Amino acid sequence: MPEVEVRGFVEEIRDLGGLKFVQVLTGGGHKQITINKNSIDPKMLKDFDSLTRQSCIRVIGEEKPMPKGNGTEVIPKSLEVFTIAATPLPLEPTGKTPADPDTRFRWRFLDLRDEKKHLIFRVATDFEKMTRDYFAKQDMIEIHTPKLLGAASEGGAEVFSLPYFGREAYLAQSPQFYKQMAICSGMEKVFEIAPVFRADPSFTYRHVTEFISLDVELGYIKSYKDVMKFEEKWLRYVIAKLEKKWGNEVKQKLGVGIEVPKTPFPKIKITQAYDIIEQAGLPVERGGDLSSDGEKEIGKYAKEKLNSDFVFITDYPSTVRPFYHMRPERNQKTTYSYDLLYKGLEITTGAQREHRHDKLKAQAVEKGLQIHNLEFYLDFFKYGAPPHGGFGFGAARIIMLLLGQKNVKEVSFVPRDPKTLFP
Amino acid sequence: MPEVEVRGFVEEIRDLGGLKFVQVLTGGGHKQITINKNSIDPKMLKDFDSLTRQSCIRVIGEEKPMPKGNGTEVIPKSLEVFTIAATPLPLEPTGKTPADPDTRFRWRFLDLRDEKKHLIFRVATDFEKMTRDYFAKQDMIEIHTPKLLGAASEGGAEVFSLPYFGREAYLAQSPQFYKQMAICSGMEKVFEIAPVFRADPSFTYRHVTEFISLDVELGYIKSYKDVMKFEEKWLRYVIAKLEKKWGNEVKQKLGVGIEVPKTPFPKIKITQAYDIIEQAGLPVERGGDLSSDGEKEIGKYAKEKLNSDFVFITDYPSTVRPFYHMRPERNQKTTYSYDLLYKGLEITTGAQREHRHDKLKAQAVEKGLQIHNLEFYLDFFKYGAPPHGGFGFGAARIIMLLLGQKNVKEVSFVPRDPKTLFP
Repeated sequence: MPEVEVRGFVEEIRDLGGLKFVQVLTGGGHKQITINKNSIDPKMLKDFDSLTRQSCIRVIGEEKPMPKGNGTEVIPKSLEVFTIAATPLPLEPTGKTPADPDTRFRWRFLDLRDEKKHLIFRVATDFEKMTRDYFAKQDMIEIHTPKLLGAASEGGAEVFSLPYFGREAYLAQSPQFYKQMAICSGMEKVFEIAPVFRADPSFTYRHVTEFISLDVELGYIKSYKDVMKFEEKWLRYVIAKLEKKWGNEVKQKLGVGIEVPKTPFPKIKITQAYDIIEQAGLPVERGGDLSSDGEKEIGKYAKEKLNSDFVFITDYPSTVRPFYHMRPERNQKTTYSYDLLYKGLEITTGAQREHRHDKLKAQAVEKGLQIHNLEFYLDFFKYGAPPHGGFGFGAARIIMLLLGQKNVKEVSFVPRDPKTLFP
Repeated sequence: MPEVEVRGFVEEIRDLGGLKFVQVLTGGGHKQITINKNSIDPKMLKDFDSLTRQSCIRVIGEEKPMPKGNGTEVIPKSLEVFTIAATPLPLEPTGKTPADPDTRFRWRFLDLRDEKKHLIFRVATDFEKMTRDYFAKQDMIEIHTPKLLGAASEGGAEVFSLPYFGREAYLAQSPQFYKQMAICSGMEKVFEIAPVFRADPSFTYRHVTEFISLDVELGYIKSYKDVMKFEEKWLRYVIAKLEKKWGNEVKQKLGVGIEVPKTPFPKIKITQAYDIIEQAGLPVERGGDLSSDGEKEIGKYAKEKLNSDFVFITDYPSTVRPFYHMRPERNQKTTYSYDLLYKGLEITTGAQREHRHDKLKAQAVEKGLQIHNLEFYLDFFKYGAPPHGGFGFGAARIIMLLLGQKNVKEVSFVPRDPKTLFP
C-alpha cells in the first residue's frame, strides 16, 4: 500500500462507533481518513478527537481502496495538527447552509475553501496562461502601463483621484493611451493584463470597481476587421485548450459544458442590431448604445439564428464611441469599431484608432474634451505613427459565463464594489 | 529575389548623388531601402523625398544582398506613407545626441524607438513568460488581489490614500495579506505579478512610486529554507532559459553577458553580514537593516569570495522585520526571514509567516499596530491555517541588473516618481 501525505482542512468529521471518518479538503480535492479506534495509538486518537471542522492538519498514512463502494481511504500513521479552527464557524464553506453574498464575501477565505471554487481559479489561471502562450507565438511584447496618471484618461467620469506629492493623480480606467504609446514606440503588437479602476456606483452582476483588463494593440492593421480576426482566433484557441484540459472536471463539478466556438464569429451591424431588438418588442434608442436587455436579446438572436455564443456588433455611431475611434472618411457619424458579445453580455470594445494627429485632435475638440490634458497623448502621433487598432477585454466576464457563474464577483478573488473595501 | 514588406519608422535618410538610402526601424530590427533616382517611378521618388526622419512608412520591395559588404538592401516597388513626422524632433531616439533623462522620459515614446530598448522589453516579456511556465509546472494558482484597500496594509508609512464613496481607501503597497489569504483559502501555492504603489519620496536609481511586484506564497512549508530553495531553483531556470534565447543578442546589442547562476545560492547570516561590512571599514548598525552601501559590500564579497552574483542574507532581527514574520520559539529577537541580493542590490524579501492567530496578534500588538485595522487579516488565521511562507520580488530590479542598465526607470515602460505623472 502506498504511503501518502494528506494535508488540508477538515471538512467533515463522522463518528460511527468504533470508526471515525475525517474528510479533508486538500489542494487537489478530497481525501477520507479512516480511524479505527481500537487499533490506533491512543495519543493519536486523542489528537483526532480534538479536531474541529476546518482545522488544518497533515496526515501520513496508507491509502487503500474502500472496503465497499468507490474511492480510497487513508489509514493514518501520523497526524500533525497545525491549527485548531475556532468554533462556531462564521460560514459553512461547502455551502450546505446557504449564506447571503455579503456574509460569503465578508468571510471570503472560508467561502473559497471549496474545491468547486478552487476550480474556478484554476481555469482562470489557465485562461491567462494559454492566452500568454498564444500571444508569445504572435511575437507580442507585454507592457506594464502606469496606473497612476496625471490626467483623467477619457473625460473624467467615474475616475478615482488622489493626492500625489502636492498634485492630483488619477487611477487608470484603462491602459488605452499607453498601449497606443507602445505602438508609437515602434513595438508592433503589445498586450497587458492588469487591474483598472472605475468609480462606478453600480451594483449589478457584471460591475466591480476594480477588475482585470486584458488589452491588446496591433500595429499596421489594414482595418478594424483585422482586430476582430485576431480576437476570434485567440478566443477559439484558448477555449479549445481549456475545454480539452478542464472540460470534464468543469462538467462534473460545476455542471456546465465548455463549448468551443466556431470561427469566424458572426457579425451584425449596429443598425441591424437595433432592428432585431425593436422586432423583439424592446425599447431601442437608434444612434445610442445597446442596453443590457438589448445585448441579451442580441445574444439570444445569435444563439438561435446564427448558432453562436459569440457575436460581433460593428460600426457604432461616433456619438457613443470615444474620440480616438477612427471614422470612415465619408461618414463621420459612424466608427470603425465593434463590441464583442458572449452569451448576450459585452466582453470587448475594439476599434481601429485614429492615428493622424490633426484628425485625432479635431475629434477630441468635437467631443468637448479639455485639450491641455490630452496634449501628452496627442504628441504620440506627431512624430510618425502607424495605423493601429486593438481591444480591451474583461477577463472576469468571460470566465463567469464560461463556468456558469451568476456574478463577476464569484470569479474575482476579493471583489470590490462601492460598499466593499474589506477583506 | 524575395518580395518583402518593410514597415516602421525612418531612422536615417542619406542622399548620395543618384542614390538615396532610407534606414527603417522595424519591429524586429533595421532594414535599408535603396532608391535609384534614375530608375524609380517619379511619383514614388517624390514621396521618398517628402519623408522626414521618424516618419512612419510601409515599403514593398525586393530584398537582395548589398553589392559591397554585409547585410541586405531592399529595392522598393511601392511606398505607403502613413504619417510624416513633424520637425524638428524633440529628441533623437537613437541617442546620437545624448539627452538628459527628464527629456528622454518626457518623450518616452521617441526614446523607446530604438532596437536596444525594444530588446529590454522583449527580455522582460520572456522573463515573465518563462516564470509563468515554471509556476504552471509547479501547479500554482495565479491570483489577482485587490489594489484598493480599506486599511493601510502595513502601518501606513508611504501609502497613497484616496476618497472612496465617502470613505478612505488606500493603494496596496504589496499583496502580502491577500496572498496569505489565498493560502488560508486552501490554495496550496499561489503567485501574483501586478503593480503596487509606494508614496516614497526617494529619487534613487532603484526607486519608483509604482512598480511590478512578483509575489509567491507557498503552503505547508517546513521552514523558510523551503522558500529560498523554491526561489533559487526558479531563478536558475528562468535565467538559463533567457541566456539560451537572448544571450547572444543581449551581448551584441547591450554589451553584457547573461550569467546563469549556480544553485544553491550562498547564504550568509545577517550577523556575519555586519562583520563583513565592518571589516570593509563601512559603518554598520548591528541589529539594523543593511544600508545601500552595505548591500553593495556584501554583493562584492559574494562575487569575490563565494563566486556568486546572488546571495541570501538570513535571520534578520525582528526589530527590522514586519510583525507577520515568524520568530524562532526560543529567540524572539530574530526571524525566520531572508533577503536575496543580486549584484549587491536587494531584490527579494522572504520569510516563513506566523500562522498561529494568538502569536500573530501578539506580534502585531508588540509592533504598536492598530489592531482594529488588522482584524480582517487576523481572522484569516482563526479557522485553520497551514504553515506557509513566501517572498516578494522586484522584477524591474533584476531586469535592470541582468541587462546592465543603470536605473530601474530604463526598464520601466513609463516610470513614475514623485515629480512625474506624464506621459
